[in-house]
Amino acid sequence: MLQSQTKVQDSPMPQATKTAILVIGGAEDKVHGKEILHTFWTRSGGDDSIIGIIPSASREPVLIGERYQRIFEDMGSKYIKVLDIRDRSQGEDPQFQEYVEECTGIFLTGGDQLRLCGLLADTPLMERIRQRVQLGEITLAGTSAGAAVMGHHMIAGGSSGESPNRPLVDMAMGLGLIPEVIVDQHFHNRNRMSRLLSAISIYPERLGIGIDEDTCAMFERDGIIRVIGKGTVAIVDARAMSYTNQAEVTVNEPLSLHNLKLHILSHSDLYHLHKHLPIAKNA
Amino acid sequence: MLQSQTKVQDSPMPQATKTAILVIGGAEDKVHGKEILHTFWTRSGGDDSIIGIIPSASREPVLIGERYQRIFEDMGSKYIKVLDIRDRSQGEDPQFQEYVEECTGIFLTGGDQLRLCGLLADTPLMERIRQRVQLGEITLAGTSAGAAVMGHHMIAGGSSGESPNRPLVDMAMGLGLIPEVIVDQHFHNRNRMSRLLSAISIYPERLGIGIDEDTCAMFERDGIIRVIGKGTVAIVDARAMSYTNQAEVTVNEPLSLHNLKLHILSHSDLYHLHKHLPIAKNA
Repeated sequence: MLQSQTKVQDSPMPQATKTAILVIGGAEDKVHGKEILHTFWTRSGGDDSIIGIIPSASREPVLIGERYQRIFEDMGSKYIKVLDIRDRSQGEDPQFQEYVEECTGIFLTGGDQLRLCGLLADTPLMERIRQRVQLGEITLAGTSAGAAVMGHHMIAGGSSGESPNRPLVDMAMGLGLIPEVIVDQHFHNRNRMSRLLSAISIYPERLGIGIDEDTCAMFERDGIIRVIGKGTVAIVDARAMSYTNQAEVTVNEPLSLHNLKLHILSHSDLYHLHKHLPIAKNA
Repeated sequence: MLQSQTKVQDSPMPQATKTAILVIGGAEDKVHGKEILHTFWTRSGGDDSIIGIIPSASREPVLIGERYQRIFEDMGSKYIKVLDIRDRSQGEDPQFQEYVEECTGIFLTGGDQLRLCGLLADTPLMERIRQRVQLGEITLAGTSAGAAVMGHHMIAGGSSGESPNRPLVDMAMGLGLIPEVIVDQHFHNRNRMSRLLSAISIYPERLGIGIDEDTCAMFERDGIIRVIGKGTVAIVDARAMSYTNQAEVTVNEPLSLHNLKLHILSHSDLYHLHKHLPIAKNA
């Protein structure tokens, strides 16, 4: 692998080729500056990247797969493959497995996060992707449904326009790529504070991450979250929550959550995932 | 005044006749239990109440005035007057002024908060109402636009569905009945976290209070906020905010706000306005 050799030679790696996990709030710019997609492409190795696109969240995997393929081709990638997985048995497909061994970047498209998890969770292919991501060998990006699956716990669906309440949010198991977070996307755009709060009331030890459209929380290998794109990333930290009635409320009763921390981060702001501290862009 | 005499005799006043300021998130129940309106009625003296309804926020003041008049009549009030102020000069009307001297409860309806402030702010009538509220002689309630005007700073309008940003919110001067807060209403219902955060980024020393529909933050005279109704009251406390880019951002750039406190309060929860502390309902 050309890319791997380059990486081994350059030590420490230049910022541009450091791997990362890009968690994208959906509706990322695909036409103009393409800042987020370009960052994914650069972090995947740029011209030397070998990219796998997994469109399995979508019911139109061919269309959506081709769209991203064209974008990364235009940026200069010579090796791109759409891993059009429509059946769990494909998670053992030797051809796919071989490609994942070569990959430098994996992109999970939007669609339905339950569909994506249903097809991918616990397959040998997904396990190998997770392993290579954790070893820092692959840059991973997920947008919208592809972002929702990042945590151990996943927001599978829900409603909006209501006070935080238990049935407002449907929880499921995610792919666990960043186990300590619960991600919500299209965040301020689709009025999802209430459903993220409802999720966090159940799992207050997880960090709630609400990502706006065309915005990305990029998780670096050293535990730093870096914000890219045109909106904000909201971080809900309930570790010091002093009270919730979550365990007592009857269906549809509103939730109490006392003493949460809330950070609104915008472009170039950082957040220490382990120290639980935001860092201003000019600090 | 019968009510005033009763008050003087009963010392300390029973809870039911203690005056308060009821800040209502709009769309309060007017048909079934009417919990919030009934609390206003009780706190205004119940059967002995003398109620003034100010429908001036609305462009249909007669209709809306009559609707509330009928509700409080049905509850048992014998003295109700709609103070249908459509011109600032009416803020000096001796008949209205005389009625305000007798009143035990004033209710501000919904509509447009700029219209309400334009007609009432700094008139002798409004000044006298404020004085009597501050002396604890009158219970005051405001719903929707009538809630928005409570602070010194007021959210006059804005948009939703975007990341927090400076032009998302239009600020104006409120009636200053509870100067230390900035109120937003129809809160989770209309996706207004972003606009409240945008307002708070400009005035971080004020407490952001986001009130859901059919929900009330009742401000007691001792500085306790009590939550009534079917939704939640969100409290955004930015006093310890470590960073905002509010002063630097160009138009439409998203805002950063680091280290906010957020409390979600539901029915029967309390909040110490001066100690800045939430108290669980069962504490």
